[in-house]
Amino acid sequence: MENITNVRGFRYWGAHTGVKSKRRDLGLIVSDKPASAAAVFTRNVVVAEPIKICREHIKNGRIQAIVINSGNANACTGKQGYIGAQAMIAAVSEELNIPREQILVASTGVIGRELPTEKIVAGIRENAAKLTSRKVAGSLLASAILTTDTFPKEGFVRFRLGDTEINMGAVAKGSGMIHPNMGTMLGFIMCDAAIKPELLQEMLGEVVNDTFNMITVDGDTSTNDMVAILSNGAAGNEEITEKDESYALFKTKLFELCEHLARMIVSDGEGASKLIEYRVKGLAAKDQARQIIRTVSDSALVKTALFGRDPNWGRIVAAAGRAGVSFDPDKTDLYISADTEIQILKGGQPLRVNLNELKRLMRSTEIAITLHFNQGEAEAKGWGCDLSYEYVRINAEYTT
Amino acid sequence: MENITNVRGFRYWGAHTGVKSKRRDLGLIVSDKPASAAAVFTRNVVVAEPIKICREHIKNGRIQAIVINSGNANACTGKQGYIGAQAMIAAVSEELNIPREQILVASTGVIGRELPTEKIVAGIRENAAKLTSRKVAGSLLASAILTTDTFPKEGFVRFRLGDTEINMGAVAKGSGMIHPNMGTMLGFIMCDAAIKPELLQEMLGEVVNDTFNMITVDGDTSTNDMVAILSNGAAGNEEITEKDESYALFKTKLFELCEHLARMIVSDGEGASKLIEYRVKGLAAKDQARQIIRTVSDSALVKTALFGRDPNWGRIVAAAGRAGVSFDPDKTDLYISADTEIQILKGGQPLRVNLNELKRLMRSTEIAITLHFNQGEAEAKGWGCDLSYEYVRINAEYTT
Repeated sequence: MENITNVRGFRYWGAHTGVKSKRRDLGLIVSDKPASAAAVFTRNVVVAEPIKICREHIKNGRIQAIVINSGNANACTGKQGYIGAQAMIAAVSEELNIPREQILVASTGVIGRELPTEKIVAGIRENAAKLTSRKVAGSLLASAILTTDTFPKEGFVRFRLGDTEINMGAVAKGSGMIHPNMGTMLGFIMCDAAIKPELLQEMLGEVVNDTFNMITVDGDTSTNDMVAILSNGAAGNEEITEKDESYALFKTKLFELCEHLARMIVSDGEGASKLIEYRVKGLAAKDQARQIIRTVSDSALVKTALFGRDPNWGRIVAAAGRAGVSFDPDKTDLYISADTEIQILKGGQPLRVNLNELKRLMRSTEIAITLHFNQGEAEAKGWGCDLSYEYVRINAEYTT
Repeated sequence: MENITNVRGFRYWGAHTGVKSKRRDLGLIVSDKPASAAAVFTRNVVVAEPIKICREHIKNGRIQAIVINSGNANACTGKQGYIGAQAMIAAVSEELNIPREQILVASTGVIGRELPTEKIVAGIRENAAKLTSRKVAGSLLASAILTTDTFPKEGFVRFRLGDTEINMGAVAKGSGMIHPNMGTMLGFIMCDAAIKPELLQEMLGEVVNDTFNMITVDGDTSTNDMVAILSNGAAGNEEITEKDESYALFKTKLFELCEHLARMIVSDGEGASKLIEYRVKGLAAKDQARQIIRTVSDSALVKTALFGRDPNWGRIVAAAGRAGVSFDPDKTDLYISADTEIQILKGGQPLRVNLNELKRLMRSTEIAITLHFNQGEAEAKGWGCDLSYEYVRINAEYTT
């Protein structure tokens, strides 16, 4: 029953302030002491107001609290939105006696609608005293940051650095694209290890690149995406100050946690009926492998074939071919796997496969597609989902 | 990140069939082999159709699958509902090749509305092949059984019986009384230990009595309440056949899990702003202690005082006094505690208390109230919540 509340020196709460009609819409995270902090933000050119503020605050490398509202993205809201985000920070600052620049703010929800600042600020003032490390607070926070997600995403890992037990927990929300551009990915990771902020920032960037940045539901990039980690040192380990063994283990565990959350997010993609893991191997550079994964996993032809359980593997190779990466088709191997693995292509030549067996395998809710180009050592992994009637229905219905 | 999927030999799924407009509404649980099974059901005189069937099926002590729909309670639905519940079982039986009498069925949602049998049966047929022990299936199931809950309830414990690691996980939903009588408590516990069904039934009954039966949100009893445990022996331990040490440890862990879920359910009570733990001590019999807890925790006067953070402790004693249990008021001690404990009454005499300190303590989101009657050794614990404007608003709005 471990969750983020098992990370020492943190307290949380999730509450309903009225931005959403019924469900929880305010989340609070606070560390007893300023924590080493790192964050990565959306690469979208249009960014929400909270992101503008967070980019400044994270520069200090020390953060003590995060406030999140759901139901309103506070994006494309102009001055009103900027003042609103600052008001959220000010309320947290006053209630918890934390300097403003040590507070992050995040929003997710509808874009372009005025931020209901008063409701949120009143909610912060009412709920600040409720911050707690009791178990339930983890569930409340995980639920409070959701928008169109159909289930909350939580993760927890525990490991040892020397003699010290380290706890690392996280909550995340995924992207449901009910309103165009409304899908936002948020991830908040709490850890009780002591580590230098500079190292944490570098590590987070690398891990996010291989996890959250390798998932796609529909190729959109939100104005509000943000992944932040706070590591407060409450565990009492010797501070990690260089890239030693402790750093490596910390990074491995952070990767494990982020990969878990990334997979959960894709599994909850709008109308998704399958989780697809893409494995691309045998290229000269990792960026090439990533580029091919992005193209294949975003291909509507591939995604609809996967939904239709149609072993139409030609579409996979075709999508790879248009990714802007040069490769020799005659060296390409292709495998599709679930409980068993079936090789489809060997050196560019289709093998005779048992079509019934392949069709059975395609019915699985989790499929791995492996492309091996046999022309280098670089590889990458990524995750996507299929494209279903349901996705179309949902997005068609809500577009107008 | 442990959840029910860590229990060996079980697979799960949660899906959307259209009973609810958007959210998941079908849950499936299946054990690879028939599991030792026990269940307790609502004591309401009016029981839903699924309960009638489960009462028969559980008599065998062996269950291999559970199917749950949310969004419709299948209660007060007469013959149509009974046939519908049987159709759900038949669909699971055919898809998974499991005898009908080894399947349980549960429903939760609106009462008295025709069961949309076709949608549910189509959903079972479509999703049976998706049953999996992958992590995400735990989240899908936990979400699929919810109605007005604001967050899913999950729990997991791990322990050793001799050299064998045992995993026990559970999902539950709580009671939100948006439509009168709609609140239903469901709990499904999966374990991989080998244990005789008769022992399991006795143990479950006792544990539920001290956990789920000791919580109250508003004193209503649903027509659909059900807690079931399946223990499939996949762990490979020597079967528990008598009340030995293994039995005792199993029971302790089951208690821990059920208490956790019970507390989560109360924390998610309609409009609840606080979780209250009631501890009654020093009576001649446990049933007396339970009776007092039920009366006090259901008292509207006590609950509104708790909501108002009003240290109006007279109401607590007054409610205890009308519980039908005889005690000597002049021996009664009363304590209220959160981060600290304050004694209010000693031998029936009010102590001088720091009222500001008491008021501060009453602001906590988790409060314990201890009544010690000093006239015996029996004690009991129970959990309730406060009664807020929000509860009234929700239930007033939806009554008509």
